[in-house]
Amino acid sequence: MKKQTEQFNNFLQQQNFLKEPKNLYTPIDYMMQLGGKRIRPILCIMGNQLFESNEHPTLNAALAIEIFHNFTLVHDDIMDEAPIRRGQPTIQHKYGLNTAILSGDLMMIWAYQYLEKVGTQYLLDVFTLFNKTAAQVCDGQQWDMDFEERQDVTIPEYITMIEHKTAVLLAASLKMGAIIGNATKEEAEDLYKFGKNIGIAFQLQDDYLDAYANAEKFGKKVGGDIAQNKKTFLLLKALAKANPTQHTELQKLITTKPTNETEKIQAVLSIYNDLDIKEETRQQMKSYHDKALKALSNIQAPQEKKQPLLDIVDLLMGRDV
Amino acid sequence: MKKQTEQFNNFLQQQNFLKEPKNLYTPIDYMMQLGGKRIRPILCIMGNQLFESNEHPTLNAALAIEIFHNFTLVHDDIMDEAPIRRGQPTIQHKYGLNTAILSGDLMMIWAYQYLEKVGTQYLLDVFTLFNKTAAQVCDGQQWDMDFEERQDVTIPEYITMIEHKTAVLLAASLKMGAIIGNATKEEAEDLYKFGKNIGIAFQLQDDYLDAYANAEKFGKKVGGDIAQNKKTFLLLKALAKANPTQHTELQKLITTKPTNETEKIQAVLSIYNDLDIKEETRQQMKSYHDKALKALSNIQAPQEKKQPLLDIVDLLMGRDV
Repeated sequence: MKKQTEQFNNFLQQQNFLKEPKNLYTPIDYMMQLGGKRIRPILCIMGNQLFESNEHPTLNAALAIEIFHNFTLVHDDIMDEAPIRRGQPTIQHKYGLNTAILSGDLMMIWAYQYLEKVGTQYLLDVFTLFNKTAAQVCDGQQWDMDFEERQDVTIPEYITMIEHKTAVLLAASLKMGAIIGNATKEEAEDLYKFGKNIGIAFQLQDDYLDAYANAEKFGKKVGGDIAQNKKTFLLLKALAKANPTQHTELQKLITTKPTNETEKIQAVLSIYNDLDIKEETRQQMKSYHDKALKALSNIQAPQEKKQPLLDIVDLLMGRDV
Repeated sequence: MKKQTEQFNNFLQQQNFLKEPKNLYTPIDYMMQLGGKRIRPILCIMGNQLFESNEHPTLNAALAIEIFHNFTLVHDDIMDEAPIRRGQPTIQHKYGLNTAILSGDLMMIWAYQYLEKVGTQYLLDVFTLFNKTAAQVCDGQQWDMDFEERQDVTIPEYITMIEHKTAVLLAASLKMGAIIGNATKEEAEDLYKFGKNIGIAFQLQDDYLDAYANAEKFGKKVGGDIAQNKKTFLLLKALAKANPTQHTELQKLITTKPTNETEKIQAVLSIYNDLDIKEETRQQMKSYHDKALKALSNIQAPQEKKQPLLDIVDLLMGRDV
């Protein structure tokens, strides 16, 4: 993973994001320099190296994905009214709403400009996959916003939402690398399934850690989702499993303003406990994790070539569970 | 023009914009049904028919451009806080800010999805042109916003702004049609120049009509730009030509709140009169108009094939000047 991270970071540093008009490009440069784990471009490079390594086109595709991902963060931060991203002010907070909208738009266009360089023989496949994925990410964001207003969200709907909002972009990152590596259609599709299922498992883990993490290692407040009545897998599963008394209590907890937030979190966790939600969630995570590994095992490639992908799964899924 | 309009409208009506999640797609359908003159897709079709007619790929490219153009309107309306578009509520007014941002984003992605269908042999050229143009449109919008805050905008800067914000998309519409019609590089470039110069002339005419139109035919209030201190070609030219006394008076008029708006408009128009701004603007328009016709005349094609393009120029440039 270190090698792919270096490859990507070197390529990123060679790019010039500071053009004219500077009021438009400075925020883009700011956003791209904020860092982050660069998981998606690393997956793209790994997806390529699993097959025939084709460095330059892959780096361009990887950067397209990373810029697109950062564009979604810029616009999501507006929609969520988020003041902070990666410990720094968000673009709309630092530069204003209009700049955040327009520089986000330009980032998306810029992502497409990097796709120009994937090679004509791969362009249509990569472009089609990128478009489909980008549209799905928007659908996922809309569902996420819709769910905030709805009281009847089902678990399959929730899984569809996280699949679109998060998992498909991880999957597409891998698959784009595979396409540029001349993988067969089946291999590329298996790698996509691997990424999609890891993505879903990762998002479920995020829900899990909010309730059950070691606060110090987790890096954010335990119970934040509960305090905000966020419709996580845990809450939806609890509502689905609850007996009428538990259901009434849970509904009351998530619809009335608590006098004491810590007590509210404890009360919800206690219901989760009674309903074995911790174990339910672990099983669900494991099921997607297993599906992912199964898909990867379908690909005929030497184990040492698969190792970086298994390492990144361990990294993503090993967060204090 | 009637034929090309029908071709495009028929194709547009075959599309289905109403998908799930409906909170995201309903606003897109609303926007695409609001109408407008469909100038850009019509230019794309005409650009194609000037060379080898290739209907289906051209219609897809034409729709990509029209969706992209409508995306820019959705996001521009947020930035301008505009309540009304084509006589109807704007998306952010009708559906809220977040929906306007996200449905705009999805419209851009959707535009790219239509580009998938231009044919593999044309894809890279069309895609590259589309990307470059889309980025320029964003640059133009940023300059336009920047100019509102600046008091030292020059005429070349202003021309660059309208070229990016408006003219290049008209030019690219024509050129995309030409590429799909197997035009030579030179022919496609001449058609691009034709469109770009018509676009600049058209935008200058817009400035001109604000001051000198027959109010009834123009359909909006004469002097609106003057009332808003908009940095039009007329104002910038007047500031550039003014003697010190006129300059001081003009500066005072555009920086202090008037007690009587009609009197302010009259005072500015009176300075324009003294400086012969009407004729200066007509000459500038004519110069770009001539450049456009010159570029078109460089293309070897039968006159009857060029006629639709000349007709649309007459329509665009014949507005009561």
